Amino acid sequence: MHYKMSGTNDIILPSFNDLTETAERIKIYIHHTPVMTCSSLNVITGASLFFKCENLQKTGSFKFRGAVNAVLQLPEEKRKNGVATHSSGNFAQALSLAAKTAGLKAYIVMPENATSVKKEAVLGYGAEIIECKSNLEARESTLNDVVARTGACFIHPYNDINVILGQGTAAFELIKDIEKPDIIIAPVGGGGLISGTALATRHLLPDTEIYAAEPMGADDAYRSFHKGEIIPCLNPNTIADGLRTSLGDKTFPIIKRLLSDIIRVEEDEIIQAMRLIWERMKIVIEPSAAVAFAAVYKEKEKFSGKRIGIILSGGNTDLGNIPF
Amino acid sequence: MHYKMSGTNDIILPSFNDLTETAERIKIYIHHTPVMTCSSLNVITGASLFFKCENLQKTGSFKFRGAVNAVLQLPEEKRKNGVATHSSGNFAQALSLAAKTAGLKAYIVMPENATSVKKEAVLGYGAEIIECKSNLEARESTLNDVVARTGACFIHPYNDINVILGQGTAAFELIKDIEKPDIIIAPVGGGGLISGTALATRHLLPDTEIYAAEPMGADDAYRSFHKGEIIPCLNPNTIADGLRTSLGDKTFPIIKRLLSDIIRVEEDEIIQAMRLIWERMKIVIEPSAAVAFAAVYKEKEKFSGKRIGIILSGGNTDLGNIPF
Repeated sequence: MHYKMSGTNDIILPSFNDLTETAERIKIYIHHTPVMTCSSLNVITGASLFFKCENLQKTGSFKFRGAVNAVLQLPEEKRKNGVATHSSGNFAQALSLAAKTAGLKAYIVMPENATSVKKEAVLGYGAEIIECKSNLEARESTLNDVVARTGACFIHPYNDINVILGQGTAAFELIKDIEKPDIIIAPVGGGGLISGTALATRHLLPDTEIYAAEPMGADDAYRSFHKGEIIPCLNPNTIADGLRTSLGDKTFPIIKRLLSDIIRVEEDEIIQAMRLIWERMKIVIEPSAAVAFAAVYKEKEKFSGKRIGIILSGGNTDLGNIPF
Repeated sequence: MHYKMSGTNDIILPSFNDLTETAERIKIYIHHTPVMTCSSLNVITGASLFFKCENLQKTGSFKFRGAVNAVLQLPEEKRKNGVATHSSGNFAQALSLAAKTAGLKAYIVMPENATSVKKEAVLGYGAEIIECKSNLEARESTLNDVVARTGACFIHPYNDINVILGQGTAAFELIKDIEKPDIIIAPVGGGGLISGTALATRHLLPDTEIYAAEPMGADDAYRSFHKGEIIPCLNPNTIADGLRTSLGDKTFPIIKRLLSDIIRVEEDEIIQAMRLIWERMKIVIEPSAAVAFAAVYKEKEKFSGKRIGIILSGGNTDLGNIPF
């Protein structure tokens, strides 16, 4: 695809071929996750909902798709010293397992206050943890040190076209597995999932609408989308810990070009949506994964009667600290 | 099957034909639930585990299978005035939806202290609730009054051969969906699920071992099995609220004849197993459903290297009162 965007340079979006090659490349490494439906959630929203269960993906989130694709796409000279990233969340586990899968070393910069459960998961996949202070500056400088010392290749958690293409395979599978949806919706943080989702949807279904959902307390994507330029997320305040990041220069142009709109939801709406999914669907999802369903539930008049694909992004949450 | 049991009269077990007819009869009404695997739980037990997810069954538990089979098997003269039962738990919802499915009225006797969530679920399926005091005597006398007044047909939650056959379809599906397991294990309360499971397993897989799992605080099935006669469950004390009932004269002979053994687990083992399944498999199960996995985890030396089918019986639990 090749689009002229107003106020920006031309951008070249990845092709349909890029996407199908990605799906083919990673399919033996990932879970083709199930699509679940739930009659009681259909009743309370008045819509037909199809939940793509990335909480059941390896490492507990969609992040593994992008991580494994990025690792597999590295040329020999870039991969030989391993890979590195900074993450306190799902990308840490995802890149650790992706590196292990490819027989590479992984270096994960994690804030010193990351929970022991998360650190153990990363260590369990054989990665090396380098601790740092819990702020972005410390994370970036520690990562730079690690890369300088080891020669490892930095893999960005979302602002990387191979990561974006990998994340797009969730929607790619979803669309192949169900009858044509009218709408696809996914949460937005740094934008890796939603931009991949948007690419897959636009390639496969030219007239299906694409929405993102975002916490009101970290609504930089909403503001960026409407202003037409990236506005960083300065003081994110949301339980949806996977959505506190800012858009990047790879994800924003895709979002700007392909999305119909971004719907914002309040914290209590996220928690209510999370509880409804646990209670009615009997699955464990993390707060970030509840945000897209929260948006559909909030705007149910708008979505009534539609067939809606919802990406449930992950299921890694602290069971000792459930918000309801 | 026809077995001579020592110290009892001959018993005639339902035939393979009875079971296949049951599976055929109910299949358009039920969910063919998925079988899930989890590599990290395989690692910590040293076995290959196949979880039959009845938490994803309609009404949130396997109970719907038996309820719908029992309702469908009622002759016209017995069904015309509807059906009735007493239950504070999963069978209340199961029979309510089964009756609705068949276009019948359902009367559910529930203790006055049943949670409002459970009452609302029953009402949501169109059943009528009759409240009573919270003891077995009050439940039975209230049920008798309801039956006398309405002419409804009493359906027992487990001590009914059509209920048992319906419950057996979960193992029937599991065995058809996976490569031959060495062992099948399910929890035991009144014995409807385990006796149906045992029938299906023995008919389909003559040399697969069949185990039940039971809370130590309600171990009447263990004591009955080893003594050779029914010992009622007098003061059950367990978080596994679905397993506080006693065996019946329809379920006990099947259990006595077909089970290899019954494994008992402590309360902390049940809670730990429940948390592991939520955390690693990202699914919501109720305490009773954790008991079979708790038994496998407890006796992991015994089960190491085996292929084990585990029935996860249900997912209806109070999310406002999680035991970890």
